[in-house]
Amino acid sequence: MSAPTTPRTSPAADRELLADFAAMSAFGATPAGGVERQAATADDAATRAWLAEWLTDRGFTVVHDRIGNMFGLLELSPGAPYVLAGSHLDSQPRGGRFDGAYGVLAAAHAADRLRRHYAQTGTTPRCNVAVVNWFNEEGSRFKPSMMGSAVFVGELPLDTALATTDAAGVSVAEALDDIGARGETDVFGPERRVAAYAEIHIEQGRELDKSGTTLGLVDRTWAANKYEIAVVGSQGHTGATAIADRQDALYGAALIVVALRELAERFGEELHTSCGQLTVYPNSPVVVAREVRMHLDLRSPSDELLAEADDALRARFAEIELQADVAIERRFAHTWRGHVYQAEGVELARAVAEDLGVSSMIVRTRAGHDSTNMKDLVPTVMLFVPSVEGISHAEAEFTADEDLCTGVDVLTETLARMLDGALTPEPRS
Amino acid sequence: MSAPTTPRTSPAADRELLADFAAMSAFGATPAGGVERQAATADDAATRAWLAEWLTDRGFTVVHDRIGNMFGLLELSPGAPYVLAGSHLDSQPRGGRFDGAYGVLAAAHAADRLRRHYAQTGTTPRCNVAVVNWFNEEGSRFKPSMMGSAVFVGELPLDTALATTDAAGVSVAEALDDIGARGETDVFGPERRVAAYAEIHIEQGRELDKSGTTLGLVDRTWAANKYEIAVVGSQGHTGATAIADRQDALYGAALIVVALRELAERFGEELHTSCGQLTVYPNSPVVVAREVRMHLDLRSPSDELLAEADDALRARFAEIELQADVAIERRFAHTWRGHVYQAEGVELARAVAEDLGVSSMIVRTRAGHDSTNMKDLVPTVMLFVPSVEGISHAEAEFTADEDLCTGVDVLTETLARMLDGALTPEPRS
Repeated sequence: MSAPTTPRTSPAADRELLADFAAMSAFGATPAGGVERQAATADDAATRAWLAEWLTDRGFTVVHDRIGNMFGLLELSPGAPYVLAGSHLDSQPRGGRFDGAYGVLAAAHAADRLRRHYAQTGTTPRCNVAVVNWFNEEGSRFKPSMMGSAVFVGELPLDTALATTDAAGVSVAEALDDIGARGETDVFGPERRVAAYAEIHIEQGRELDKSGTTLGLVDRTWAANKYEIAVVGSQGHTGATAIADRQDALYGAALIVVALRELAERFGEELHTSCGQLTVYPNSPVVVAREVRMHLDLRSPSDELLAEADDALRARFAEIELQADVAIERRFAHTWRGHVYQAEGVELARAVAEDLGVSSMIVRTRAGHDSTNMKDLVPTVMLFVPSVEGISHAEAEFTADEDLCTGVDVLTETLARMLDGALTPEPRS
Repeated sequence: MSAPTTPRTSPAADRELLADFAAMSAFGATPAGGVERQAATADDAATRAWLAEWLTDRGFTVVHDRIGNMFGLLELSPGAPYVLAGSHLDSQPRGGRFDGAYGVLAAAHAADRLRRHYAQTGTTPRCNVAVVNWFNEEGSRFKPSMMGSAVFVGELPLDTALATTDAAGVSVAEALDDIGARGETDVFGPERRVAAYAEIHIEQGRELDKSGTTLGLVDRTWAANKYEIAVVGSQGHTGATAIADRQDALYGAALIVVALRELAERFGEELHTSCGQLTVYPNSPVVVAREVRMHLDLRSPSDELLAEADDALRARFAEIELQADVAIERRFAHTWRGHVYQAEGVELARAVAEDLGVSSMIVRTRAGHDSTNMKDLVPTVMLFVPSVEGISHAEAEFTADEDLCTGVDVLTETLARMLDGALTPEPRS
């Protein structure tokens, strides 16, 4: 156990954090306490503008890269690599106000506390720090999710991402131009390097809440298979077409939704299966559907179990094609394997929690995060604070003020140690 | 057997009919040979304008009533009641080109042949004749279907119909005003009365096609129960929400779609069950759906069987509410009972077919038609021509030229006898 390098929080700093969080939560606020600010919409833009002003006022330089990721750069040690910290400001439709947004604000407050700390103590850390707001983490308007960080780490080509369109046919490039968030450079590259990444997020699960633990140390992600399928039948009249003659795409789609649930029940808690998006064509009350497009989502902590579930689903597809007299076509797939976060990062955060007297436990993340991408590029620390009853992607999502404040304390100290090279003892020159 | 009162068709009249049908089918034409002209859209308006010009050129007076039904009046016997004949010009999204449109054009040609016949022979029938294009028979843009005829016969209040909105929030009143099709009077009323109605339509079933019969004499309708339900669950994260904690509205909806099919299989050919319209909220790939709205459609020739099926479905709803942990709410219902067409009308059409040497058979209609409403008001004749393989509400819908031409011959002679009082021996004074 060692003494924290940064001063503990003050009641004034906590009040400032909570006031800022309340101010930020007003953008795209929904009546039931959530927010709706899907990627590159007017409400997303308003939230970005608010954050940009906050950062600029405190001496950060705000820049965007070519996929609309927004960075607040604070150069403390000219020429040194940057430690990034952040999350995302975009939300689901009628989403919660904590998901992503808390992590961005926590990073901003943590970085700003460090700025003041170094100024007051006259010290210089080995790295610089940057706050990041990743573009389109949610994936509700433009697929796939975690788009900005995927482009950043090179897992998704920039041109593919920019050409992606929403349901109205608007491309990512157009949407970013509309809100003035498309930058002209990569921001980071040969001259400006990234050393490490830290992110804090609400848990989106119940483990911390149920066990009364304040801090989650994320050691690995669940693997996920996501794919879009089309169920293709034949259009007909609901009154006139005999049941035996029907090729009802919606009946085929319903059998798939039910099969997904049966699969989850068969494999137990280690498999999550979902269909959250399903669109019927032509979707007229008296017409047997000719086509249904669906987005399927299978997740597991085990790559092997996920592969087994995927095989089982594929076999079920073949049965459903016969049962409903439809064709099932795979249109698009997006997969991430289950992977570990660097053990050094988990240990660093555990030590910080212990030094600050904060209870912590190892947790896995079932949801994807921008850190899921970043950990493939640089040493990454992923922290969770409790979410009451694990509610997520819903307006009722809630985290207590005390946990929000403690999370920023832990992030601040963790970042301080990362800036001093805790995870990068020999920063690349 | 008696001699027809009107001259048989000529090759020239057949050519004119087929040329007009081809011209009319160009409005809203789709690449695969269908049409898309939902009620009160620009393509519906263009088709209406084409018909209005056709009628006006031939001496008909074109007027609209307050729900946008369009009439071409031909006064042959001043002060006498009218026999109406027609169907509807609106279509399903990517619908067939025959459904409805053939019946309107057939009525126009039949009425025009009668006009020329009376002019040439110097005779005056006991009734006048009017061609009608009923508003919004399809119900794909505005629900319920058969709206214009339902208002006409008094089964649906005018104000309710005018206030109905489409998915974009546009009301029927606004949509009718946009295309200039909302009239200021009822057209028919104390001064101008309706004596009888005739409609010809493609079968939307396979009985005529399979048996090689040219004309269907519709003696009764199937009953139908249509209702909108909402499946209400709770929004959550597809990755993070444990399966046991989910209240997945889409899972509940899928169980209902599957239950509908199981019901149809249990009751056999006398029951059709369908869900053609299903909308998911928020419909995001990584969000467990909070609500699904669905339109259900149950049809049977038997009122009793339909009631039994409805009870069985209701019982299944209660089980699904438990199984998926959702609530199922009924929002809107529209029911029509199975009813017979007047036997005198069936016999009249049978006699005409026999006199013209056209093969005919009694058929039931499973689909609803405007005549389903009109038969409750006045003596009504409903005729079918064959539809190849019974395809309907789809671009591949097809009826042979020969059958189209024969249908108009039969309708012309049937109308001639109706104008002479065949179904109304003592027209109301």
